[in-house]
Amino acid sequence: MKFSPVVQELIDALKCLPGVGAKSAQRMAFHLLERNRKGGAKLAHSLEKAMTEIGHCQECRNFTEFDLCEICQSPKRKLSTNLCIVESPGDVIAIEQTGEFTGKYFVLMGHLSPIDGIGPNDLGLDILAKQFASGQFEEVILATNPTVEGEATAHYIAELANEYSISMSRIAHGVPVGGELEYVDGNTLSHALSGRKQYSL
Amino acid sequence: MKFSPVVQELIDALKCLPGVGAKSAQRMAFHLLERNRKGGAKLAHSLEKAMTEIGHCQECRNFTEFDLCEICQSPKRKLSTNLCIVESPGDVIAIEQTGEFTGKYFVLMGHLSPIDGIGPNDLGLDILAKQFASGQFEEVILATNPTVEGEATAHYIAELANEYSISMSRIAHGVPVGGELEYVDGNTLSHALSGRKQYSL
Ligand SMILES: [Zn+2]
Ligand SMILES: [Zn+2]
Repeated sequence: MKFSPVVQELIDALKCLPGVGAKSAQRMAFHLLERNRKGGAKLAHSLEKAMTEIGHCQECRNFTEFDLCEICQSPKRKLSTNLCIVESPGDVIAIEQTGEFTGKYFVLMGHLSPIDGIGPNDLGLDILAKQFASGQFEEVILATNPTVEGEATAHYIAELANEYSISMSRIAHGVPVGGELEYVDGNTLSHALSGRKQYSL
Repeated sequence: MKFSPVVQELIDALKCLPGVGAKSAQRMAFHLLERNRKGGAKLAHSLEKAMTEIGHCQECRNFTEFDLCEICQSPKRKLSTNLCIVESPGDVIAIEQTGEFTGKYFVLMGHLSPIDGIGPNDLGLDILAKQFASGQFEEVILATNPTVEGEATAHYIAELANEYSISMSRIAHGVPVGGELEYVDGNTLSHALSGRKQYSL
């Protein structure tokens, strides 16, 4: 015996969320059905809209429902010669909140991970190479996470930037090794940015 | 600076799920956008359908998209003189899986909680009283959770059943005190059902 088909379908569908197993999915379904139908309906609508409308910014790869994201659309940013390379959209938010950086971003949407089959092109490094070739950027800030994969990814990109004689730096002081960039407090991140140092291969 | 409006709306909407804060919502949104758009779209559809179609069974109050749930529709169950009263739909599933009970259910969808403003009518006890009055039931099994609230609710229902001279029992052996019924293993629950004892006020 199972729940009624529509209830069971909802529970099964909720399991597509990361970290949500059978018991959590059941609890979520009951909570919405019993206490927050309005919230559930709103979530259905937001999900449907996001899944169909959200794409990647043509320049920085960040999530956006437009061709270019808000940052890439900004006239002031367009002329910047600084490019900050991060792993995720959350990292962009975190760095923007420090107010220390006014250049452009490139969002990898992950890091190199041969085991998971994630190679350079999955991170848009072919697009990035074209941006390097365009000659717009004088400095590239490697702001990937200070993890093994993040460092390997930074190293790979540094080799790429080096081919185009672009100056490279790696955010450094204050970011705890093994930690995740977006969970670092703004002050620490400010120090990490201003204390960045030349990246040597 | 925030995420693009549609992304931000999705993150905010995900926070309506129990136990999901800002960071989890962000992680869920990115996961769906980046790795499982199909799952996200399916979830949107399932949610929309469930929020509009799911109601309560007219007899037992369990969630169902029909007037009567599968159990209340069953011709064999309709004639049963045994009624098992539980707090949640998950409890029905747990008891059904023991195979020890072939009577009808009444699902309270919670327990008495004066602090939260949950009184007898919120649990459908007015509907339950009518079922008691109908004379169909000879025995009522009080299978609310063995928590303070669950015991208080069982006691309240026992007083109600007593008015109609219906025999009452409370599931007993094996259910750990302070635990939640639906997390108990099937074997323990079987013992708790077969070892039920007369409920005295
Ligand atoms: Zn962009
Ligand atoms: Zn029913």
